[in-house]
Amino acid sequence: MPFETRDPAFAERVRRSFDRQGLLKTLGARLERVEPGEVDIALPCAPHVLQQHGFVHAGATISIVDVACGYAALTLMPPGAAVLTAELKVNLLAPAEGERLVARGRVVKPGKTLTVCQGDVYALRGGEERHVATLLATMAVVTGRGFSD
Amino acid sequence: MPFETRDPAFAERVRRSFDRQGLLKTLGARLERVEPGEVDIALPCAPHVLQQHGFVHAGATISIVDVACGYAALTLMPPGAAVLTAELKVNLLAPAEGERLVARGRVVKPGKTLTVCQGDVYALRGGEERHVATLLATMAVVTGRGFSD
Amino acid sequence: MPFETRDPAFAERVRRSFDRQGLLKTLGARLERVEPGEVDIALPCAPHVLQQHGFVHAGATISIVDVACGYAALTLMPPGAAVLTAELKVNLLAPAEGERLVARGRVVKPGKTLTVCQGDVYALRGGEERHVATLLATMAVVTGRGFSD
Amino acid sequence: MPFETRDPAFAERVRRSFDRQGLLKTLGARLERVEPGEVDIALPCAPHVLQQHGFVHAGATISIVDVACGYAALTLMPPGAAVLTAELKVNLLAPAEGERLVARGRVVKPGKTLTVCQGDVYALRGGEERHVATLLATMAVVTGRGFSD
Repeated sequence: MPFETRDPAFAERVRRSFDRQGLLKTLGARLERVEPGEVDIALPCAPHVLQQHGFVHAGATISIVDVACGYAALTLMPPGAAVLTAELKVNLLAPAEGERLVARGRVVKPGKTLTVCQGDVYALRGGEERHVATLLATMAVVTGRGFSD
Repeated sequence: MPFETRDPAFAERVRRSFDRQGLLKTLGARLERVEPGEVDIALPCAPHVLQQHGFVHAGATISIVDVACGYAALTLMPPGAAVLTAELKVNLLAPAEGERLVARGRVVKPGKTLTVCQGDVYALRGGEERHVATLLATMAVVTGRGFSD
Repeated sequence: MPFETRDPAFAERVRRSFDRQGLLKTLGARLERVEPGEVDIALPCAPHVLQQHGFVHAGATISIVDVACGYAALTLMPPGAAVLTAELKVNLLAPAEGERLVARGRVVKPGKTLTVCQGDVYALRGGEERHVATLLATMAVVTGRGFSD
Repeated sequence: MPFETRDPAFAERVRRSFDRQGLLKTLGARLERVEPGEVDIALPCAPHVLQQHGFVHAGATISIVDVACGYAALTLMPPGAAVLTAELKVNLLAPAEGERLVARGRVVKPGKTLTVCQGDVYALRGGEERHVATLLATMAVVTGRGFSD
């Protein structure tokens, strides 16, 4: 069933917040798609995000899927709320190599204080997609603490 | 009880492998301590690893504690083996801010094919330490696949 | 894409193994469906599986979805192999109440030594289904240790 | 550092709540120790809690450590609050066999809406203790929803 947003400017809000994230600029992540409860983020597989065997580092893979899930949650929040990752769990299914990764974050269960999200990361290589990671995360909704998204 | 290594050059092996990781150079992570079953990694809290509220990004925090745990597992492996993260789960306990983070990775249960590790991240600020994340991870031992650490 | 089994008697194997589990008998769990890579298990919501607020206990909910995922993995194993849960992570989405729960376990990524599974639990009440839990787990394939499923 | 309780009758509250749990009676679990932020629960290894290979079922092991952590969180709550498990992750380290299991739940970080706990399960056999599981969980504090512990 489709989710309803409580902020008509949800996509603009996600884009502005994304642009303020130093780490995402450092990694080279790009916001690809923002829909209610769904956000996709891409990452080119460049040398500065690799680990010692030449695959994309788990930390970079997890970063983009965590962000995709956090923003998927944010699309359903009222204006003024912020989202922080309370916890996440990720299974790394295959070495991440190719031209780029795409992380797809989805809301499983929205809530007033906690939103549960599910995410997947695919590696794109020569026109083929390989499932490289799957994630389950709990996002905490934060209001009135002096920061917002 | 202390762990026994099966590679007398374990510390040198960890250092060489660490230096080949593009992402760790990008983040500015430093290897601080390598003992059998225990590895510490530090990360200065610089703008290029932050998120939109000015805290260290969860992705950067997770990267260093994942690496600390992976290398803690590697210290107990025979020469020629490599370690890959099979899965990890992290709870983010407090916003990560200060001068730098220190991630401490520890082996809970070593194994022939799987090694379970536990990790914690502390933020150092004005001489005080704050517990900002705790992690539980499964590291897979990989041999004979053409890559080693 | 559909999974291929390596044991034509996979469904019979799962049923026989299920019947040997003391805890499942104690809980009152029933095997509902066995297909390659997919197993469903049901649990009536009786007083002996509840917690203090009258909902099904998280431990009972987790038990049936863990078993559904373990057997989903087993359907893809060669004869003689056994499956043990290496680790699991579950998010409890809503109080589990109703006439009965159904847990659906699915293989996400089969492997020689590790199989990653995903599971969901639904509470059925008055003809309606409510999503009460979602799980991500790593199943370890065990051979030659003197026990099989 | 020791935790402070906000309810002088915390131990009595945990005991009363424990006694109302149908599943714990069914399993045969016993409350062994209740201190601020720390709760231990024991489970005799009887046939009705085993799985098909003769070990204690992961579902039973997880049940007692989840409860130990939930009550460890409850010891720090004000009167009238209830605790529900939001999510948990467990690594099963060794087959659980012996005379009985002991689960030790500990608060890592108490909070107003979320409390993070860590737990361990040990199997006791012939005077020896074996570490069989380790858990990380997020407990949600629930107030004003019509149920309490």
